[in-house]
Amino acid sequence: MAGFSEGETTMTDVVSWVDGAQPGSDFPIENLPLGIFSTPGEQRRPGVAIGNYILDLPAIADLLDEDWRDDLSMPVLNGWLARRPQDQRAFRARLTQLLSDERYRADVEPALIGQSEADMHLPCIIGDYTDFYVGIHHATNVGRQFRPDNPLLPNYKYVPIGYHGRASSVRVSGEPVVRPKGQRKPPEAEAPEYGPSRRLDYELELGIWIGRGNGLGDAIAIDEADEHIAGYCLLNDWSARDLQAWEYQPLGPFLAKNFLTSISPWVVSSDALAPFRKAMPPRPEGDPEPLPYLQEGNGAGALEIQLEVTLTTERMRSEGLQPHVLSRGSADSAMYWSAAQIVTHHASNGCNLQPGDLIGTGTLSTSSDDGLGSLMEISRGGKQPITLASGESRSFLEDGDEITLRAWCEREGEVRIGFGECVGRVLAAR
Amino acid sequence: MAGFSEGETTMTDVVSWVDGAQPGSDFPIENLPLGIFSTPGEQRRPGVAIGNYILDLPAIADLLDEDWRDDLSMPVLNGWLARRPQDQRAFRARLTQLLSDERYRADVEPALIGQSEADMHLPCIIGDYTDFYVGIHHATNVGRQFRPDNPLLPNYKYVPIGYHGRASSVRVSGEPVVRPKGQRKPPEAEAPEYGPSRRLDYELELGIWIGRGNGLGDAIAIDEADEHIAGYCLLNDWSARDLQAWEYQPLGPFLAKNFLTSISPWVVSSDALAPFRKAMPPRPEGDPEPLPYLQEGNGAGALEIQLEVTLTTERMRSEGLQPHVLSRGSADSAMYWSAAQIVTHHASNGCNLQPGDLIGTGTLSTSSDDGLGSLMEISRGGKQPITLASGESRSFLEDGDEITLRAWCEREGEVRIGFGECVGRVLAAR
Repeated sequence: MAGFSEGETTMTDVVSWVDGAQPGSDFPIENLPLGIFSTPGEQRRPGVAIGNYILDLPAIADLLDEDWRDDLSMPVLNGWLARRPQDQRAFRARLTQLLSDERYRADVEPALIGQSEADMHLPCIIGDYTDFYVGIHHATNVGRQFRPDNPLLPNYKYVPIGYHGRASSVRVSGEPVVRPKGQRKPPEAEAPEYGPSRRLDYELELGIWIGRGNGLGDAIAIDEADEHIAGYCLLNDWSARDLQAWEYQPLGPFLAKNFLTSISPWVVSSDALAPFRKAMPPRPEGDPEPLPYLQEGNGAGALEIQLEVTLTTERMRSEGLQPHVLSRGSADSAMYWSAAQIVTHHASNGCNLQPGDLIGTGTLSTSSDDGLGSLMEISRGGKQPITLASGESRSFLEDGDEITLRAWCEREGEVRIGFGECVGRVLAAR
Repeated sequence: MAGFSEGETTMTDVVSWVDGAQPGSDFPIENLPLGIFSTPGEQRRPGVAIGNYILDLPAIADLLDEDWRDDLSMPVLNGWLARRPQDQRAFRARLTQLLSDERYRADVEPALIGQSEADMHLPCIIGDYTDFYVGIHHATNVGRQFRPDNPLLPNYKYVPIGYHGRASSVRVSGEPVVRPKGQRKPPEAEAPEYGPSRRLDYELELGIWIGRGNGLGDAIAIDEADEHIAGYCLLNDWSARDLQAWEYQPLGPFLAKNFLTSISPWVVSSDALAPFRKAMPPRPEGDPEPLPYLQEGNGAGALEIQLEVTLTTERMRSEGLQPHVLSRGSADSAMYWSAAQIVTHHASNGCNLQPGDLIGTGTLSTSSDDGLGSLMEISRGGKQPITLASGESRSFLEDGDEITLRAWCEREGEVRIGFGECVGRVLAAR
C-alpha cells in the first residue's frame, strides 16, 4: 500500500530547528500539513504549518524542485492534491530536510510567518462535497429517536450511506454561523411556519480530501482507494434539526445542512497519520461481511484520531469561564466504514471524484455518553438539557454560542500530530 | 419584473439575414441561446445558436461592447451568467441587430459555423448541481408505488423538495451512459449483490441556470428570484432504480443518480422564454397556500414549454425504424412550484447560489398517461412493459438504447423557441 510502508513514511528522530516545532506541538516536523494563507495586503498562497509558524512556500520556491513551482504559485492546493502520492511524499521529504537541516536555516527562516499574523482560507476549490454517515453510534442514536426498537435501517451494514452536500457553503474555521431560517413544523402544529431555526446543532466529523481523481465511468478498487486520499481535516456539519425533520423525506437533508459547513484549514496528509492507523474494529457478531468490492486487504483502515468538542457561551466568555467539554473520543471506534471503503463505494458506480473534492465521514460519536458528536444526541433530542458552569442550560445552540472542534493523534512512542481547530460562533438570524 | 416587461423583451418583426434562422427553426433570431463550442483543432469558445449555425462570438468581438470581451474570451459562460439581467438584455439586443441588419452581414457572416461542424461542451463550470422534485404528477406516481393510498408526503405542498446532486458528472448531450454498477437487493433476496443495474431509467427534467448569485447568509426575495435565473436547458437525470430503492434511506438518492446527468448544450435565456410564461395553474381545492416567502406576485411562474422524449433501440436503428415516442406534454401543467419558488426556497436559509449553478426541476410528468417522464412511471414500476415497433419490449433501458429529450415553445402569434436536444445512449457496464 502506497503511503503506509514504514520505510518510506516514518521520519523519526528528525529535529526541526524551528522554535516550538518540537514533539508535543500540534504541528511538529512529522506533520507538515499544507494550507492556504494570506497576510495583510498580500495574496493568498500555500503554506506549511510548523510549530506556531507557517512556512511561506512561494517565498522558498527556489529551494524546491522546479516541477512544484506552478502548483505553489496558485492560491489553491488543487494542483498539489492531484499529484501522485509518491510525488507528495517526495515533497514532504524535501520540506523535512529544509526545516531540520541547519544548513538551510538562514534561507528558510525568513519565510516563516507567525500563525497569529495570518488569515487562513479554504485550501482548495471544492468541486463536490459529499457527506457520509459512517458513525454507527451516531446513526444508532439518531435512529433510536425515530425507531426505538430498530434504530439502524436494513441497508446500513451493507452500504456506506452518503449523500451530496453543498460545496458553495463550505467555509474555513472562524466563519460566523448565521442562524438559518426555514420551514419548521412542530408535531402538534397544523401547518409549518417559516422562521429562525430553534434547534440549531453542530456535528463533529472528519473531512477527507480527495487527491487523484478517477474518470467518469471508472471505479476505484478498494486496494487503491488510499492512494486517492490526500489528507484529512476537521468538519462541522452545522444542522438545523427542526428544518431537517420537516423537509428530509423523501430525498434527504437539504436546507437543514447547506447553509454552512466549517472545516479546519490544514490538510493533514495521509502520510503524517500513517503511524496512527490500525485494523478496523471487528464487526459485531452477526453483522454481514462487507461485499467483496468493499473488503479491505491491508487491515489498517481505522484512524486513531482523538476528537474533542467544546462550547462557550457569551456569558461564559464574559465571566472568563473555561469552555465546556461536550465530548471526547477516538474516531477509530466511531467509524463502521473506513475512509477507503467510503471512497471505493463513492466511485463504485463510476461517479468521478476530482482533486479537492471533500468528503465528510458523518458524525463521529463513540459508544460512550461522553463521546457524543452532536447536541441532538447529548440532549436526547432536546429532552435532557445540559447545565453549564455559568448556570445556563442548553439543548441546542443559542446565539453567541461558540463550538470548537479539535483533533490530534497521540500514542506512546509516536510524535503527536495535530489538526488544529475548527471554530464557529452562532450569530442571530438575518 | 425585470426580464418580463413587454416593451423590453419582445422583438417581433425582426428578420434575420441568416439562412434557416426564420420562424419555425429551433433557433430563430428571437431565441439566441448561448453555448460553448469548439471546432477541430481550436479552443472552446462561446457561441450563439442561429438557425443551423453557431455565431462564433470571439470572432466578432470587435463588433461588441468592449466591456464584454473578457467574458467572451473565456471557454465557459460563468462570467456572462453573472452579469445583471439588463446587461444580458443589452447584449441580446446587439446580437439581434448584428444578425438582422444587412449592413453587418459582410462582417458577421464569416463568423457563422455550421452546427454540424462543431462539438458542444458544458456551458459553464457548475459549482453546485441541485435537483428538485416539483413535478407533482411524477411525485404522485412514484409515491403511489410505495404508498397507494397516500402517495404525497405531508411536506410536499409546503416545501419545494430538493436535494444536492453531483456536479462533476454533469455532461453535455451525447455523452455515453455507462451502465452503473451498484448494490441492489430484490425484496425476495436475503442480502444485496453488487453488479450492473437492471433497472436503468431516464428522467425528463428542465435545468435552470443560475445567473447572479447571493451572498452566504442572504436570502433571495421571491419577487427578485427571476433576476437570478439566466436561462434554461433540458436535463436527463439518469437513474438506477434498483440501486435507488436499496440505498436511499434515510439520506436520499446517491449512487443511483450521480453516475451521470446529461444536459442540452444551449442556455435558452429567460428573455427568449418570456412570451411563453403564464400564471401557475390554480392549486387544487384544499391545497394550502404557499407560505408568504414563497408567494409570487407576478402571476407568470409557469413555463409553457413542450417536452418530448423518444427512444430508439439498437435493433430499431439497424432496421431504420422511427424513434418511439415515450411521452409528450407541457412543463406548465407538470410543475407544482415555479422556478422562482425553487430559487427562493433554495436560498431561504442563506445558502449561497453562484453563477453557473445548475438546478433540475425534477421529473416533469403530466397528468396524462402519454406525458410520463420516466420509464418507471410508463411501465408501472416494470410491471407493464411497453412494446416497440421492432417487436421488442422495454420496462427499463437496455444496452444500446438511446433516449432523446426535446423541448420547444410554440403558440399562435409567437415565434417558436427551441431548446435543441439532449441525447444519451446506454453502453454496457465496465
